[in-house]
Amino acid sequence: MTSVGALYLVPAPLDFGCTPATPLADVMPQATLAVAARLQHWICENAKTTRAYLKRVGEVVPLAQPVQALQLQELPREVHKKGDHGGGGTPVFDARPLLAPALQGHDIGLVSEAGMPAVADPGSSVVQAAHALGLPVIPLVGPVSLLLALAASGLNGQNFAFVGYVPQEATERARRLRELEALALKTGQTQLFIETPYRNAALLNALLTTLQPGTRLAVSSGLTLANAQVRSQSVSTWRQSGKAVTVGDLPAVFAIGR
Amino acid sequence: MTSVGALYLVPAPLDFGCTPATPLADVMPQATLAVAARLQHWICENAKTTRAYLKRVGEVVPLAQPVQALQLQELPREVHKKGDHGGGGTPVFDARPLLAPALQGHDIGLVSEAGMPAVADPGSSVVQAAHALGLPVIPLVGPVSLLLALAASGLNGQNFAFVGYVPQEATERARRLRELEALALKTGQTQLFIETPYRNAALLNALLTTLQPGTRLAVSSGLTLANAQVRSQSVSTWRQSGKAVTVGDLPAVFAIGR
Repeated sequence: MTSVGALYLVPAPLDFGCTPATPLADVMPQATLAVAARLQHWICENAKTTRAYLKRVGEVVPLAQPVQALQLQELPREVHKKGDHGGGGTPVFDARPLLAPALQGHDIGLVSEAGMPAVADPGSSVVQAAHALGLPVIPLVGPVSLLLALAASGLNGQNFAFVGYVPQEATERARRLRELEALALKTGQTQLFIETPYRNAALLNALLTTLQPGTRLAVSSGLTLANAQVRSQSVSTWRQSGKAVTVGDLPAVFAIGR
Repeated sequence: MTSVGALYLVPAPLDFGCTPATPLADVMPQATLAVAARLQHWICENAKTTRAYLKRVGEVVPLAQPVQALQLQELPREVHKKGDHGGGGTPVFDARPLLAPALQGHDIGLVSEAGMPAVADPGSSVVQAAHALGLPVIPLVGPVSLLLALAASGLNGQNFAFVGYVPQEATERARRLRELEALALKTGQTQLFIETPYRNAALLNALLTTLQPGTRLAVSSGLTLANAQVRSQSVSTWRQSGKAVTVGDLPAVFAIGR
């Protein structure tokens, strides 16, 4: 009888596409790197960038196998485009076939392009399939931009929601921002959301024209990077800063609260 | 001219009150431990347990000062009891006086009893005060039970909320659980909540009698500990497991979704 392998959720640093790269020891516990270095089987968003990440891991903890010998399976395109839950709560595909190596006794790593897999990132359908197959699921510690941003915001961290992306179209976006603001002001529940980095400035502009003066707005960008920035203040204070207000094109997390 | 100090958000391991203790290198990046080892000024929930934690840090990275020489300030009791926001969104006290050392150029560490300060734990009023004073706020990477639990649940991680504790009184609790379930089923937003560990079993029982059979329920307990457990399945499957269903008195995170 072969015992089954486990599914390890392996975080990645938050410097994807950013330079300079973050030293891995700054953001990853030694034990996380040790697991990443010994796994041969992986499920990932992109095999090429995953190999590059594991090469970096190998510079800290020697890999059990050379990168070329690792078995990498990519998540299907529909998950990249629509998320595991297609905007709803039900996985868009059956990930069980990807977990076949675990049924033969091999541990498998699940990794995304940045941060924790399955949190604001693809992967939850794989985790759900692992539970369906009765595999142990073991999340490893690493950086999670949402939570770093929430802690650094000074907004209510005892009741909060992450709602993903807001609409791109201006009218629709303003409506959604007002809806999130109303919820935050009424319930005290901090509302977190993200944007594709090149649209950060447009979103900040929309926030400053849409929100009420007394609402608190926090913007964190480039967390864990050398040029990380956290700014948290009332909308009226943001407005007074005028031209001095900038948000670069680093990955950013936006939060509103009271 | 003295430049101001920064406020570092320093995570703590998740083994508070649990044995055996987790080796710090399993859950903390080296850089987080290095910052913790050099800070002299701290704001914490409890000075005694914070000294014990920093002693453990010192076994990995030598402390810049002996533990006895560290300056520890405790958060006021009202924050312990009611949270920084008193259940709402507005801090219950002005934390600026605690940050006086930073105005004299000293870096300060903010730490809670377990996990990330200011996330499902006290501290956000201190962070908000730091922003009011114009101090840099620097969140460090470490374990966050909520996010580990969310990733390990396989539930939707692209839209989720953490709502803190549910009511203890049975009728009130059932009402609240049905409300959270309705929200999760309608919007696809995963709903996360916690309970005081000795009430875990009562909460699980309430969930299994209250929720609809098709709702997915995930329970993670003791994450990052040697006896960690993650179970995620439909309520009907939970019910079929009958007496085999147990949840110990380790810190646990509950999540419901569709």
